[in-house]
Parts: sequence; C-alpha cells; structure tokens
Amino acid sequence: MAVYTEVSDEELAAFMAAYATAEVVSFTGIAQGVENSNFLIQTEDGTPYILTLYEKRVNPADLPYFLGLMEHLAAHGVTCPLPIKARDGHSLSTLNGRPAALFSFLKGLSPRRITAEHCAGVGAALAGLHLAGKSYAGVRRNSLSVPAWRPLFEQSRQRADTVMPNLAAEIDGDLDEIDGVWPRGLPAGTIHADLFPDNVFFRGSEVSGVIDFYFACTDVLAYDLAIVMNAWCFESDFEFNVTKSRALLAAYMRGRPLSDAEAEALPVLARGAAMRFLLTRLYDWLNTPEGALVRPKNPLDYLHILRFHRRVADPGAYGLD
Amino acid sequence: MAVYTEVSDEELAAFMAAYATAEVVSFTGIAQGVENSNFLIQTEDGTPYILTLYEKRVNPADLPYFLGLMEHLAAHGVTCPLPIKARDGHSLSTLNGRPAALFSFLKGLSPRRITAEHCAGVGAALAGLHLAGKSYAGVRRNSLSVPAWRPLFEQSRQRADTVMPNLAAEIDGDLDEIDGVWPRGLPAGTIHADLFPDNVFFRGSEVSGVIDFYFACTDVLAYDLAIVMNAWCFESDFEFNVTKSRALLAAYMRGRPLSDAEAEALPVLARGAAMRFLLTRLYDWLNTPEGALVRPKNPLDYLHILRFHRRVADPGAYGLD
Repeated sequence: MAVYTEVSDEELAAFMAAYATAEVVSFTGIAQGVENSNFLIQTEDGTPYILTLYEKRVNPADLPYFLGLMEHLAAHGVTCPLPIKARDGHSLSTLNGRPAALFSFLKGLSPRRITAEHCAGVGAALAGLHLAGKSYAGVRRNSLSVPAWRPLFEQSRQRADTVMPNLAAEIDGDLDEIDGVWPRGLPAGTIHADLFPDNVFFRGSEVSGVIDFYFACTDVLAYDLAIVMNAWCFESDFEFNVTKSRALLAAYMRGRPLSDAEAEALPVLARGAAMRFLLTRLYDWLNTPEGALVRPKNPLDYLHILRFHRRVADPGAYGLD
Repeated sequence: MAVYTEVSDEELAAFMAAYATAEVVSFTGIAQGVENSNFLIQTEDGTPYILTLYEKRVNPADLPYFLGLMEHLAAHGVTCPLPIKARDGHSLSTLNGRPAALFSFLKGLSPRRITAEHCAGVGAALAGLHLAGKSYAGVRRNSLSVPAWRPLFEQSRQRADTVMPNLAAEIDGDLDEIDGVWPRGLPAGTIHADLFPDNVFFRGSEVSGVIDFYFACTDVLAYDLAIVMNAWCFESDFEFNVTKSRALLAAYMRGRPLSDAEAEALPVLARGAAMRFLLTRLYDWLNTPEGALVRPKNPLDYLHILRFHRRVADPGAYGLD
C-alpha cells in the first residue's frame, strides 16, 4: 500500500485539464502498489480512473515501453489498464515534478484466499498475455534475471547471516548450481514477471484484468509461468499444492502448449524464479529504513520455495501430465 | 493512510450478502483515516460505497452514537456518510471479527492547500453541523477534554523532554493556567471535534461533505470552532493567518452567531484546543512502534500554535469584529 506523494488541488486540476475527461468529483489515495503512488479519480459522468505517479524506483526511460505494452495488450484482447491519451495525444505526463499517467479503471477483485479455480484463471490469462505480447515491438531487457543475481547478492552477502544462520552459504551454492544448468534457447517474448495475486482481478473464477506491468520485460515465457507457480501454488506454510499447480499448468497449456524442453526446464526455472524474489526481498529486508511506509516481505518465504524446487527431479511433481 | 485488516473474498461476500446493494465489482483499500480500515466498493450499478472496519482505537460501545449521529445529520441537511442499513434494518455489522459498517460515498476533494475561501466554507459547514446536531438525542462525553489532559500528560511526562528540552515544564505551566481560566456555562451541543482539512470535502469553494465523526461528542460548541481555527488558519511555518481566521469566523457567525461570552472565551478555548492535540500527538510520538504503518505527527507543531494563543489577549486578534 502506498501513497508517497501528496498532490494539491491546483496540481491535480492542472494535470487533469490536459485530458478530455469529465470534471473530477473525487480523488482518493489508494493502498495499491509498492513502487508508485496511485489515486482513484471519480468523474462527474461516473467514469472512474486510476492516476499513477511514478516514484523513483521506476526508470522514466522505461515508461514508454510499459505504457506501449499496456496499449498493445488492451488492443489485443488482454484486459489491463489502458493509458488515457491527453488532448495532445500523449499518454505520459508530469505531476508534482514526477512522471504520471492516467488509466482506465478495471473492475474485479484480487483474490486473497487462492483456490485451484483462481490458479486455472491466472494460467489462462498468462497464456493469453504471452500470445498477445508476441507481436509487441517493444523490447526491454530483464534487469532482474540470472546475470543480475550475483551482483544483487553481493550487496546483501555481508549481512545475510543476520537474517538466518548460513543463509549466505546456501544462496552461494544455489547460485552456482542454477547458473550451471540454466536453460538456453527456450521460447522468449514479453513477460509480466510479477504476476502475484494482488496484480490479478477476478470476477468469480474468471480473470477480469491484469495490472502492474512495471516489471514487464523480454524474457523466457516459461520463466514467467514459474514465477506464477511460485506466487500462487504454495500454501501459507510453504507446502506446495499440486492441485493448484496442475490447474495452473493445464489452463496455461490450453492457451499455449509447453514444448518438451520448456516442461523439462520447469524445475530449474522455478528454482531461479524463487532465487530472484529471495534476493530482492533479502535486499529490501536489509535496506528498508525503520518506519518506512511499506513493510518489507520476509525473504525466507522464498527460501522455503527454493528448497522445494531444489528437490524436484521431474516436472511431473508439478502435476504436468 | 491505513488499511490494517486484510479482507478475504469470502468474508466480503458474506458481509455484502446482508445488504440490498448491487453486485460488488471492485474492492480497494484506501489511504484515508488513521483509526480504521477503509475500503472503496464499486457495484455493478455504478454506486460506490465506503466500507469501514473499526480497529481497536474505536470503542465499539460508541458506535451506535456515531452511526446515529451520521443518520441524524444526513436527515437534517448535513452531507456526511450515510450508514447503509442491511436488509435486517441494522447499520452495524461484523467483518473479520470486527465491527464494520457500509456508508454512502461522498463526492468532493479534500483541500491540500488551504485558502480563505476554504476557511469560509468550513466555517459555514461547522455552523450547519452545530445547528443540525442540537436536536440529536445521543450524548457522548468528550473523553479528550480538560479533565483528561493531566492524566494523558502523565503518560508522556517522563520522556517529554526527549522531544524538546523543558517541554514538560512548559506543558505543566500551560495546563495550570488553562485549568484556572477554562470557561463554564458556554453553549454546548454535538461537536465534530476533529474537523481537519482531510475530513472536509469541497467542490469548488463549497463544502460538499464532512467525514470521520469518530471523535464527535457533546461539548462546548465554540471549542469545536477553536479546533477548526487551529487546524485551518495556521500556515506551514505556524504563522497565524488572520485573513483565513476572519473568513472562518464570519462564515460561522452567519450561520450561528457567537455570544459575547463565547467570543471572549475564544483565546483560552483555542489554547486548550492546541493543548489537546499537543498532548495526543506527544503520546503517539512517544508510543508509536518503529515501522508502524502510520507515521506519528510532530507534536511540536501544536506547541507553536499553543504559544501563539497564550499571547492573545483579545479575540480581535482572530479578526473578530
């Protein structure tokens, strides 16, 4: 949850004057997203919008890629926030001296208690996203992929064992092993790279929208599936739920079948996906100032997930037929 | 900003099933209020609602008073959140094991940069609230009035000087003086007691709604006006802005003229109102755990305001004609 920046009436009025929307009748900071400040705007004609103000964790140079992707996906049948163009045709603007953009508001509820039906829903949505993203011309390197992990870890290594004894050594070993067997040549394309439950809206068991594309990049499609498997198919005690995983994979493969090479690579992709979130959470855990607005997530959650995948020899363990 | 409690889909569905509203199509935690968790609900027919979940700082025994007051005010022309009755006729319900209620959504924007027009607007709205509140049968003692200040201060005294040297002695002196001259017999009624700018919505220079009645109580009406003067008429450098104060008082008095006794009491009422917020902020400052979701406000802001009123001999200093 986050509203990092206060916006004055005058600043809001000046920003909105550039758009052909109806008059603003309410403006509410919302507890959504940890990277940016988000506000819900209601207008006189009843149309709601989301105003996103980009804080310092998003590189402004990447914004055209992100906004262009959302426009592309929306035009290709993926329900996601559509950047609203100002009267001058631009969708990227400035508010309080920061980049900002206005988006359509998506209906739907983020699931808080995940069921196998939700997993099937997100699997189908992810396949749809991968298919629609194939024709997107934008390219963005994944700045949090395998080559980034060691440099990221080095920033936490000295204090890693303050989080858990021997954590540094355990991560070291996994980094070596993952690096040695990381698959090459798997199908790549546009991936979401952060499709956690709070970024997916449902109406009933159907996905009604996908949000938060600010980690999207060009990378291995099955790696994105592994990120989703980690985020959706473990219980709160870190037990792997194969019923959920089976539902996720089956629904994904109805939209986009996995090749044999992709299926075989799933255990190491999932182990790598766990490593990526373990390392960023570890960094945030060690570097979030006291009293920060956003409480860091426990990095050890992802250590449990990593350990699970380390022991998986065969993708059949994920319910892959 | 605050969402203290996560609400699951099932819990939300069970809660909303008791109401005759249209289907919920979105549910968003909002950054509003520091005492409770608030969520914006959008429904299929386009009607938005606010769901408030009462956290531990609100005494459940007081909720019928607060909800009854909002119903009474709304029925008497004050635009405030209207508690929505469930099919069984009750407006107080339970969610996640806590008291909760559903309210109408108010249009309008809280002013972030206060003008004299805003001060006139809130003055008129406060007079309207006092007039409408006179006929409310509910009574609630002000648990943060003069007799509460010493016991509250005693909980902070030992560490007060860690906030500012000699703060404890300065507060001691003011408490003695205020107690000795606190006026008796002024007109009393239902007061809001916390009418800060983020609790007032405007459309243009007109007040479109008043929210957050969870400090409302039965107390001296002019004391409520003094709270508003402190919250709206000081600049960010704690300079008193008499233009704003004049606009506030004139607009208030067009709705509800002050008696001579009330006008003469304004300096001590304003000093007391500053003391009340100095003491609660000092307590919160010293007792908020590190990493808390809500950052405590600087108590010394209100020390500056208190010192200003200490030097005021005549209500003419506030622009009272």
